[in-house]
Amino acid sequence: MFRVLGGLLIGLALMMTPPCLLDQFSGPRNASYFLVAIAASVIVGAILLLLSASSEAFEVSRRQAFLITGLSWTVLPVFGAIPFLGVEGVTYAGAYFEMTSGLTTSGATVITGLEQQARGILLWRALAQFAGGIGIVALGIIILPFLKVAGMQLFKTESSDSSEKVFARGLDLARWIAAVFFGLTALCAVVYAALGMSGFDAVTHAMTTVATGGFANYDASFGHFESPAIEWAAVVFMIAGGLPFVAFIRSIRGRPLALFADIQARAFVMFLAAASLIIATHLSWTNAAAFGEAVRLATFNVVSIVTTTGFSTADYQLWGPFAVVAFFFLTFVGGCSGSTAGGIKIYRGQILWKLATAHLTRLVSPSHVVVLNYGTRRVDDEAAFAILTFFVAMLISMVASTLALSAIGLDFVTAISGSAAAWSNVGPGLGPIIGPAGNYSTIPDAALWVLSSMMLLGRLEFFTLLVLVTPAFWRG
Amino acid sequence: MFRVLGGLLIGLALMMTPPCLLDQFSGPRNASYFLVAIAASVIVGAILLLLSASSEAFEVSRRQAFLITGLSWTVLPVFGAIPFLGVEGVTYAGAYFEMTSGLTTSGATVITGLEQQARGILLWRALAQFAGGIGIVALGIIILPFLKVAGMQLFKTESSDSSEKVFARGLDLARWIAAVFFGLTALCAVVYAALGMSGFDAVTHAMTTVATGGFANYDASFGHFESPAIEWAAVVFMIAGGLPFVAFIRSIRGRPLALFADIQARAFVMFLAAASLIIATHLSWTNAAAFGEAVRLATFNVVSIVTTTGFSTADYQLWGPFAVVAFFFLTFVGGCSGSTAGGIKIYRGQILWKLATAHLTRLVSPSHVVVLNYGTRRVDDEAAFAILTFFVAMLISMVASTLALSAIGLDFVTAISGSAAAWSNVGPGLGPIIGPAGNYSTIPDAALWVLSSMMLLGRLEFFTLLVLVTPAFWRG
Repeated sequence: MFRVLGGLLIGLALMMTPPCLLDQFSGPRNASYFLVAIAASVIVGAILLLLSASSEAFEVSRRQAFLITGLSWTVLPVFGAIPFLGVEGVTYAGAYFEMTSGLTTSGATVITGLEQQARGILLWRALAQFAGGIGIVALGIIILPFLKVAGMQLFKTESSDSSEKVFARGLDLARWIAAVFFGLTALCAVVYAALGMSGFDAVTHAMTTVATGGFANYDASFGHFESPAIEWAAVVFMIAGGLPFVAFIRSIRGRPLALFADIQARAFVMFLAAASLIIATHLSWTNAAAFGEAVRLATFNVVSIVTTTGFSTADYQLWGPFAVVAFFFLTFVGGCSGSTAGGIKIYRGQILWKLATAHLTRLVSPSHVVVLNYGTRRVDDEAAFAILTFFVAMLISMVASTLALSAIGLDFVTAISGSAAAWSNVGPGLGPIIGPAGNYSTIPDAALWVLSSMMLLGRLEFFTLLVLVTPAFWRG
Repeated sequence: MFRVLGGLLIGLALMMTPPCLLDQFSGPRNASYFLVAIAASVIVGAILLLLSASSEAFEVSRRQAFLITGLSWTVLPVFGAIPFLGVEGVTYAGAYFEMTSGLTTSGATVITGLEQQARGILLWRALAQFAGGIGIVALGIIILPFLKVAGMQLFKTESSDSSEKVFARGLDLARWIAAVFFGLTALCAVVYAALGMSGFDAVTHAMTTVATGGFANYDASFGHFESPAIEWAAVVFMIAGGLPFVAFIRSIRGRPLALFADIQARAFVMFLAAASLIIATHLSWTNAAAFGEAVRLATFNVVSIVTTTGFSTADYQLWGPFAVVAFFFLTFVGGCSGSTAGGIKIYRGQILWKLATAHLTRLVSPSHVVVLNYGTRRVDDEAAFAILTFFVAMLISMVASTLALSAIGLDFVTAISGSAAAWSNVGPGLGPIIGPAGNYSTIPDAALWVLSSMMLLGRLEFFTLLVLVTPAFWRG
């Protein structure tokens, strides 16, 4: 366990080196903070590695897997936050929030005046989302199905439950995931650059697009570029980030149509098209906008929220109450399992619908036996319960977080939309403060801690973290 | 089936006679509308009775029970709404909304200037909630457990599933329910009168208190009386209306401690005390109010919202953002099963919590077998699924209703809090329009139809109505 954490911390230090060098050469504004962060990570990482040096062959129990996963995502931001302390007006609560928002690929930011920030800081934000994106795909494909969290057992890539096999196959899968992720990001960067972005902007925004992260280098987010071509390119790569990576890997490994055959991917794309069209129609009616313009604005912002990216090109709160309500609920939807997107996710929505209709059928004919399938997989009672209790955990977390934020002084709309945008890893909420035209710079420190916790809870599908606080976990 | 509906319509006509006579003598402002309504109910009721005159012995299948229940609650307001057309500015949509709000014991009103309304109208509103209250308790104790809707099978009063037995015992139970209901209401009226209310106010407010309805004879609701004693009396009788009536009946029939032994009743009262105390403390801190005054204000309004009554003595939106958020979530809670209260209800909250913690235990130790009990009853998979899918239906309805209301033009806070206050049968929402100091008089007709549907859906625990629109119901 120490070995994994130690290794991750050394990795974090390595990742901080490029932005540190960038700051050193382009002006030493934050270089010293980076150096402190690197030193701290290396030292603590090395100690952990030494402590674990004597340990035997690599094998992991369920309990250890929960603990490592939970610790990795909460401890890495402790060190990764340090460079943000060099940004004017950022407290440690803000820095931890920013780093958590990065690693969870949420994209909520406490930094204003992004245009004036050191390039090292901007690169570090993008790198955090890039690394977080790979981490979350690996978690969703390799670890959560093994842990049977929140119905992810439906996506087990093989039938064996033995941890050895899972991790042997896991290493192979992890390489594929990283390769697909690198490939998509590189392609996205090339397209962005070809469409007019500077090299630095192209690389950093490609990282935050494919990771469905949402950090931008400008306060106006993608509105800054004022380029329809760039917006449509971003739409394509945000959707790519929200698709099941397993299907990408299958496509490359000789089943080119795997992506089109995936029922989750199909429903995801159809949902995006339908939601964009409805909001575009409403926008062009109520605001008398040209339909083409309305389609572009609606599609970009719908795709950005549903894929849980969080870029924006317009303040959709000005599109009338229907748009406000629609974007609030779109915050919950999320992308596909095994993608970088957060939220409820498409497969849970599909299975939930099947469960509700099956329940209705059984109410009419109690003797009727309903067998639930999802694609080619059987949804057994255990998986169904796991998915239903996911909603219980989500609702309880939403209530607790919204109450806490309002007790700190945030208004109803900011508190409830901020909680939603945090757990679903979307980023922007509603209202004048944290809406698409705002940011989290004026949110009090105590509220930032609440929101950081919600980002982590949502990213780890609630139960991965919640098991750690049950007495059962620590017994025996 | 026709026989039941016909009988109910004749009953409705009988119920309209006292307010009709009252209006005839105290000034004929609405008497003609009442006469039309009575005539229409009697004629249609008689036709239905004649159509069914040839039918055999009284026996009901599951399917028929669903249909009768659904039709009764949607058709009665069609006729009962007619008298409200005599009120200035009330459209048919408003009148149907008002009557639905009455029968479902919600308490949302489209009528302003209640002080100037004819007494017949005020009495009719109170009678609607009184009758609705008895109806809903009978539904919750006799019919829903038989239909196994939304986990109500946990409260089956006997093990037999045969419809004959259920209805034989049902008639006996119905008499007891009506007796308890009359007794509580009479007691409440006597107490109100003793504390200074006029005879008319005492009787009408007693009817709307015990039914946890919330219609008042004054725009300022219970704030009008400016009497702490009356407020505390109302608190007691609102809580009584939210307790399980089966426990009342058991107490009278020789087990005086049945109410205290009921785990649901205990949790309900403890929740009310805790929520009142937290909000009182917050109120006395932030608004520098005296603690005693804060306890009175907080307790009355918390009890009013959680029991889904909807009276108010203050605009709690002025108590700061924490109070706003707290009252929003309190809207969902509800009272006990087999009471007049709506909402999620205490037993579902308790079982949900058990399900979530059991799920956590199983995540840690997959081989662990968890047996769920609720009191002395076993919660089997079927009941657990029924309760979990209740939340799915509730969430989908909330999303659909809020989207529809915002498309009609209502703002985010009005749309989401109005939807919540409608399905949970609470009445007042949040914001300047439908908040505790407002009413539904300025809400467009289209939105009133949406809200009426939500009141009926929530009152019938969603699935009782939803089964009627499934193809499976109409097949075979």
